[in-house]
Amino acid sequence: MTTIMSRTNSHARRMERAVEQATEAGLSGVLVTPGPDLTYLSGYQPTAVTERMTLLILDAAREPVLLVPALERPDAEPAAGAAGVSLVDWADGEDPYTAVAPLIDPLGHYAMSDSAWAMHLLGLQRVVPGAHYSSMTGALPMLRAVKDPGEIDRLSAAGAAADAAYEEIVCVPFAGRTEREIGADLAGLLRQHGHSQVDFTIVGSGPNGANPHHEMGERVVRYGDMVILDFGGLCQGYGSDTTRTVHVGPATDEERTVFDVVRRAQQAAFEAVRPGVACQEIDRVARQVIGDAGYGRYFIHRTGHGIGLTTHEPPYLVQGETQPLVTGMCFSIEPGVYLPGRFGVRIEDIVTVTEDGGRRLNNTRHRMHLVS
Amino acid sequence: MTTIMSRTNSHARRMERAVEQATEAGLSGVLVTPGPDLTYLSGYQPTAVTERMTLLILDAAREPVLLVPALERPDAEPAAGAAGVSLVDWADGEDPYTAVAPLIDPLGHYAMSDSAWAMHLLGLQRVVPGAHYSSMTGALPMLRAVKDPGEIDRLSAAGAAADAAYEEIVCVPFAGRTEREIGADLAGLLRQHGHSQVDFTIVGSGPNGANPHHEMGERVVRYGDMVILDFGGLCQGYGSDTTRTVHVGPATDEERTVFDVVRRAQQAAFEAVRPGVACQEIDRVARQVIGDAGYGRYFIHRTGHGIGLTTHEPPYLVQGETQPLVTGMCFSIEPGVYLPGRFGVRIEDIVTVTEDGGRRLNNTRHRMHLVS
Repeated sequence: MTTIMSRTNSHARRMERAVEQATEAGLSGVLVTPGPDLTYLSGYQPTAVTERMTLLILDAAREPVLLVPALERPDAEPAAGAAGVSLVDWADGEDPYTAVAPLIDPLGHYAMSDSAWAMHLLGLQRVVPGAHYSSMTGALPMLRAVKDPGEIDRLSAAGAAADAAYEEIVCVPFAGRTEREIGADLAGLLRQHGHSQVDFTIVGSGPNGANPHHEMGERVVRYGDMVILDFGGLCQGYGSDTTRTVHVGPATDEERTVFDVVRRAQQAAFEAVRPGVACQEIDRVARQVIGDAGYGRYFIHRTGHGIGLTTHEPPYLVQGETQPLVTGMCFSIEPGVYLPGRFGVRIEDIVTVTEDGGRRLNNTRHRMHLVS
Repeated sequence: MTTIMSRTNSHARRMERAVEQATEAGLSGVLVTPGPDLTYLSGYQPTAVTERMTLLILDAAREPVLLVPALERPDAEPAAGAAGVSLVDWADGEDPYTAVAPLIDPLGHYAMSDSAWAMHLLGLQRVVPGAHYSSMTGALPMLRAVKDPGEIDRLSAAGAAADAAYEEIVCVPFAGRTEREIGADLAGLLRQHGHSQVDFTIVGSGPNGANPHHEMGERVVRYGDMVILDFGGLCQGYGSDTTRTVHVGPATDEERTVFDVVRRAQQAAFEAVRPGVACQEIDRVARQVIGDAGYGRYFIHRTGHGIGLTTHEPPYLVQGETQPLVTGMCFSIEPGVYLPGRFGVRIEDIVTVTEDGGRRLNNTRHRMHLVS
């Protein structure tokens, strides 16, 4: 009972903070659709995200309201944060937007969940044409970005589980097996170590490693290949996301040089983490190391992304993001170098901001692991 | 090579038809984001749907353009329909909306994929404020609703696989096992019979059956329970969705009565299917049978939904939907009665419209199956 109460209170506090943040940002409130925002604020996770609109309306002018399809009401009622919310339902054949309209300030300005369906936004714009809408990430990027200690514990546990999976995957044979087979091993290890869901197990061997979003395929890994392993998923509802680059047998001088550039870039970016530093500064530091080494044009993505209930969320470590780092933020630092048609190297850890600087939530070694 | 060409041509033809439909509807074109619309039109399925915008722009005034994040370009290039599309990429740190703006008629009117992220729609509304946007389902509900023979073959195969799974699940023990255990058996059978993905295996026993969206839980099924089994997923990329209601041991007179009402409603709705009949008429017919029997207030959802690359898509068989049925449409017919706290009954088949009426793509028997 105590646990349930504290969870309920925690959701009520999160909803209050969301309204406070909205007010500070000059907004009337926030409109939250199924996904991580709704899970975070209300504890409610519908079985599936469908075309039937579910919407949490948080507005400084009224109590929280959760609009749900009538036939999903029994699922919503037991949600952890439901005690602090009025449930309103709409039935098939009714217009959900008409049901929402009286709950929205006709001249208000709302932040709406990024992944809300465009169909629903268009429906709201139709029935409440005088209101303005902004994306949650644009208007309230900090909504879920600063993790509380319980969340950091779960991200740490997810990182530790990913570390344990990595320590075992480097012991399996690589040469002579397909990327898909190795990826399946890795997924199995993540599950064995407590992941309830595996979202990606990228195995990019040889030239496939030069495509940073290559997943895994039928290519047979060979002796002499560089292999990127990028893997993650959910553990107790929170994300893991780790990348290590291994080599099948000894590496060439060039491969060692590129690897070392990426390793130094990751370390320099990590050491630049402290409260108050702008997100883009972490990206700049990583890019500087790689640029100075002459590989700048082969680092073709941002340096990192926040992580929490999802594996990609604010803050983004990218040029132009001036948001200062705050104690409790958690994000990836993952510079890479991709030589088209040849090989790629990426090293990624999840890092949390503490008052004293960064703390890694993944802790397997960075130096090149030689596999068989 | 022939296969690839014909697939490419098929996607090119679908893109042409989409532009024709848009023009007929008075639209400038369509804006398509990752998901079933993009798969249908271009054959491209990004590994994951993320905050990085991918957008297919089909406009009568120009050739098709697919905007992709730079690092996903290698994944997009080999897509089946990519030959007929110009690829444009944008890199991390750039504004994807600025990249889209020159590709859109500044005063145009576009239909946008229903599940496009609201964040992306807001970004487009910001850079192209004079353009208008509508939801794909609202503006072009027929875009994917009429299946071609190849698609109907795949839906038939998915239905046959679901039938085979059902024929085996009724042979497993029900009494004394949890809903979750039975659901796991059912998921395994769907995979054994060719499903690549299982989306839902609802096991609603006794009072849980009275919540039409109950999934499955730790309730132990008992002798005397009515049990709803609603299961489906993807088979060769196309959906299955079947519901049968079984009984553990002999049923009571009331249970038989309710079951028979639902069975007759499903049959009457099926017999009403023919080209030209409005979607809402199928719903009305099913509702009439249940209402006449005195159970109208316990039928709390629409009668059906389209199925294809997704398990919920237009056409919707719901009051207010005046869209006439067209040969080649495929949808569920799934009336139900839910007696709160007691039990529920639902019977669901996927039906395709032929010139001569409906044809079921699920064909296991309707009469009450008694299980042990």
